[in-house]
Amino acid sequence: MPDIVTAAMVVIGDEILSGRTKDKNIGHLADILTAIGIDLKEVRIVPDEEDEIVAAINAVRARHTYVFTTGGIGPTHDDITADSVSKAFGVPCEYDEKAYAMLEAHYQAREMAFTEARKRMARMPRGADHIDNPISLAPGFRIGNVHVMAGVPSIFQAMLDNVVPTLATGTKLISATVQCPFGEGTIGDALGAIQRAHPDTIIGSYPKYLDGKFWTELVVRARSEAALAPAVKAVEEMVAAKAADATTA
Amino acid sequence: MPDIVTAAMVVIGDEILSGRTKDKNIGHLADILTAIGIDLKEVRIVPDEEDEIVAAINAVRARHTYVFTTGGIGPTHDDITADSVSKAFGVPCEYDEKAYAMLEAHYQAREMAFTEARKRMARMPRGADHIDNPISLAPGFRIGNVHVMAGVPSIFQAMLDNVVPTLATGTKLISATVQCPFGEGTIGDALGAIQRAHPDTIIGSYPKYLDGKFWTELVVRARSEAALAPAVKAVEEMVAAKAADATTA
Repeated sequence: MPDIVTAAMVVIGDEILSGRTKDKNIGHLADILTAIGIDLKEVRIVPDEEDEIVAAINAVRARHTYVFTTGGIGPTHDDITADSVSKAFGVPCEYDEKAYAMLEAHYQAREMAFTEARKRMARMPRGADHIDNPISLAPGFRIGNVHVMAGVPSIFQAMLDNVVPTLATGTKLISATVQCPFGEGTIGDALGAIQRAHPDTIIGSYPKYLDGKFWTELVVRARSEAALAPAVKAVEEMVAAKAADATTA
Repeated sequence: MPDIVTAAMVVIGDEILSGRTKDKNIGHLADILTAIGIDLKEVRIVPDEEDEIVAAINAVRARHTYVFTTGGIGPTHDDITADSVSKAFGVPCEYDEKAYAMLEAHYQAREMAFTEARKRMARMPRGADHIDNPISLAPGFRIGNVHVMAGVPSIFQAMLDNVVPTLATGTKLISATVQCPFGEGTIGDALGAIQRAHPDTIIGSYPKYLDGKFWTELVVRARSEAALAPAVKAVEEMVAAKAADATTA
């Protein structure tokens, strides 16, 4: 039996919702999780508002093996993720001793003031573990199944690299793509029949539109080669048959 | 008093969650809504699963003035948005007479079969209005406050252009950006004080990291010039003062 591990992502930040910043983290997390056999099942983008963050975290952490958040862990007043996650878990948000000492030493060595703003980056829910930040030092953290990371893509990616080896992964979903020169309307009936005949697969149809012409990418996914191969063969034969029809028509 | 109009977006599709397709519609909708004075307050990305789509639609349509969905309205078996939205509203999903006739005539004129798959694109919740699709004909639809549109970006954008003139809009959030050559830790305390002194504004701090150096974009938003201008001035003066400190240090 395949082992299914699911995840949700919570993207925190007004700047994504206003359109000012275009998110680059959703696609990256999706790629990484797919590669290691974890199914990303939902994403929520929420504003910098405590109630919204708390509600989203609590809704998804109960439903999934893992939760990943991005954004809102910097030093400014609009960075309220640590407080919100603490509230979601019902624990105090406080200076983490190790993070505080590390940041204090870091700024001292650079003869920079350890301002209240910078101290904020040492705050996390009581009992949280660090997620190391090799780029700008201030750590992310993990509490329960929730992994809290930075929103700046390069820092998020570096933090995620540190998280990946700690995750229990499931049976990877493998996939094969069949390029189809026809639009969905031409192959939809036959494709639906193939999906029904191969219930252990997930067959997706992704319409493409370019220069006035429709074509389709057909993607077959499954958790074993034994399930995948016959469904891919059926899709390929169906597309070839449509092509033959089109030639003789 | 400013008039606040809020919106949510539901992105429907396994392909976004698997990472195979990188979403381009969230940023576009966010830009358009911001430009016309509607606040996008949440986005949910859900898989091609009826229960998940129904739950997301019902959660957000009760909370916001408008809901916009993308994806899942094509002709294939994995396009289940029309059924799911119908279920969310508790109405039957059936062939829309006008859409059916339009599509039938379209395929007839092109001597193409009006397959069961193509007929699926005429299905919508009873009582829904069309959203015209100038690119590939098959319409989106609106029911209640929910606007259901295609996932292919060019078609989504064209449909949205048809929807925008029908929307009641609020007082636009205006904004000004101050480029700050310092990282958030340097300006965080002072910026927090400015936010507290200007409660009618939303001051966002967006950390940037490039080539080993941190800098920050500070964005002040408000619903009137009278609220915006003094806060922007305060931010500019604060950044100038930090620059003077840095020069004399």
